[in-house]
Amino acid sequence: MGAIEQFHTAPGTLDLGWGHPHPDALPLDAWADATADALRRHGASALDYGRAVGPEPLIDWIGGRSDEVFVTAGASHALELIASVFGRGGPALVDTPTYHYALRTLADHGLRLIAAPAHDPAAMLELIRRHRPTLLYLVPTFGNPTGTSLPGPQRIALIEAARRGGVTIVEDDTYRDLSYDGVPAPPSLYSLDASDVVIRISSLAKTVAPGLRLGWITASPDRITALTRRGYVDSGGGVNHTTALAMASFATSGGYSTHLDSLRARYAGQRDALAAALRLHLPTASFDVPEGGWFLWVRLPGADELTKPATAHGVAFLPGDTFFLDRKPDRPIRLSFSRYGPEDLAEAARRLASAHRAMPRGR
Amino acid sequence: MGAIEQFHTAPGTLDLGWGHPHPDALPLDAWADATADALRRHGASALDYGRAVGPEPLIDWIGGRSDEVFVTAGASHALELIASVFGRGGPALVDTPTYHYALRTLADHGLRLIAAPAHDPAAMLELIRRHRPTLLYLVPTFGNPTGTSLPGPQRIALIEAARRGGVTIVEDDTYRDLSYDGVPAPPSLYSLDASDVVIRISSLAKTVAPGLRLGWITASPDRITALTRRGYVDSGGGVNHTTALAMASFATSGGYSTHLDSLRARYAGQRDALAAALRLHLPTASFDVPEGGWFLWVRLPGADELTKPATAHGVAFLPGDTFFLDRKPDRPIRLSFSRYGPEDLAEAARRLASAHRAMPRGR
Repeated sequence: MGAIEQFHTAPGTLDLGWGHPHPDALPLDAWADATADALRRHGASALDYGRAVGPEPLIDWIGGRSDEVFVTAGASHALELIASVFGRGGPALVDTPTYHYALRTLADHGLRLIAAPAHDPAAMLELIRRHRPTLLYLVPTFGNPTGTSLPGPQRIALIEAARRGGVTIVEDDTYRDLSYDGVPAPPSLYSLDASDVVIRISSLAKTVAPGLRLGWITASPDRITALTRRGYVDSGGGVNHTTALAMASFATSGGYSTHLDSLRARYAGQRDALAAALRLHLPTASFDVPEGGWFLWVRLPGADELTKPATAHGVAFLPGDTFFLDRKPDRPIRLSFSRYGPEDLAEAARRLASAHRAMPRGR
Repeated sequence: MGAIEQFHTAPGTLDLGWGHPHPDALPLDAWADATADALRRHGASALDYGRAVGPEPLIDWIGGRSDEVFVTAGASHALELIASVFGRGGPALVDTPTYHYALRTLADHGLRLIAAPAHDPAAMLELIRRHRPTLLYLVPTFGNPTGTSLPGPQRIALIEAARRGGVTIVEDDTYRDLSYDGVPAPPSLYSLDASDVVIRISSLAKTVAPGLRLGWITASPDRITALTRRGYVDSGGGVNHTTALAMASFATSGGYSTHLDSLRARYAGQRDALAAALRLHLPTASFDVPEGGWFLWVRLPGADELTKPATAHGVAFLPGDTFFLDRKPDRPIRLSFSRYGPEDLAEAARRLASAHRAMPRGR
């Protein structure tokens, strides 16, 4: 059938490095049905050039104010567009640790990156004053790589610091819907009466399917207008039109809601399986169990030397340095529990423990 | 159902301004089938993150060297990406007249635009020497807005000028497959042993459906690698993965080939209907009948005063200035014959003639 995947894991390896969905979590039949429904329902308009901001049926389902939404070709595309339209040469503050590809995307647009602690608004304000950044990027909810969320009071303080410093917060809200145990996600920064200083990025990559490349931006109407005025957007109309209409069909049929319930149960179970196996096999590891998202952020003595023995034992992860602008010893590692079922995750923990035991001593 | 279209024509108006497909030319049932087939054939891999350059089944169908192709989210997205990665601050030469949204897209990236005559390689070389541009944009085949193609000898000379001047040609090849009367399109610039200086943009918007936002870039392997190294691309993998696989199914099933045959017959018939009606009703109009594409580029005395009376008579077009960097009197107008059947096009010509007769005299 030919190569189609983003990457290939070495045969026999359990790769907890990539934040990819479990294959069984992808709604294959439902997506075929949703596409057929959208084509039937909207006829030629489903295949013609679409509205620049995205089709109304999807925007209605997204909710909120309809003039504050712009449908994108995924979250990464949203960040690319935001960096290009609102980055204005930078610099950009970035919470660290944070999503590593976001660092590269911002840097691609010539924005100088400055590490900034989102949990410390006073320090943040000082950095804003010193560097006059245009953007501040973070994943405040079920964050990548830590799985944790910025507490409510710090959200308020962060918004206030951004407002006083005249910087635009880019809130990557990719993991919002992946909340577990019935605990709701904290309110988004954008929703805290902060449309003046926050641009929010949402994604359907984790909850429906990455291959669709579908997400959206929530921003003030003037910022939405600036996006639609981009020549590239005005030229082609909706940047992922037909797929957006299929998503609207999937959503309004009730299919998405049912699907999300089963996803939450699946990923909570996978999280618990990995956490339990780590506690059992690798008791020197320490980590918080996140209330959402796809990752465990694990402190482990000797983690800096673990990559090579882990590979030899058939397990992979991402080292902590990946998510920072600098390198430092003894950072946690990121384990993704999204891609494998409980048994594979337990086996991955066993292999990680074996690799850890096999490491050269002397620390 | 809510607003989903890119624009709305005033009720009763025949709008020959937009280059949109005829609604009956969009393969609704075939696309539902192709999507279902791709999901069945590739399973979870069809919905997961895809390969950055695009899935192999589509690249195989596109043909040529597989390491010279990068699947994009449409032609406009391709140009946005090229301007961002290879524009390097510009300036950019642009053939004029040319696709108006391309002018805006290049300008969005801060590239200063300089009008350059693609049909006059000596003048082009002089401009290249004087301005040291990074890019040179043109639509050399069934061009927008003229419908004409750059002759073979000038293609060779243009490539040579670009090579000597160290500028990269961006060949927008969107209309290549829409050739009529059995006359093949001229060979692309890229195919003339010019992968060192040409980046080609291809699109499925005109031949399959705009709403899919699917196209591709053909470029040298080092340029393809530069695109895949973009943080945004590396992050999400294939920029339109699931749709690309559906297209591969549509193509390899033979559906595309049959569809293209019927498209060519349709659009050739529409072109002929508009040309004949213009000759009949508006004998002062002069134009070449293009061998491909979607446009007639029509000289008409008094065209500069025609917009308002045309609107009053229920017909619309794009004035020539749209496609240039400057304004000048007596430029041709662009009439798109893509969106309407022969009867509507004949009526549009009648209305245009009535509007022309109704214009204030004195020229």
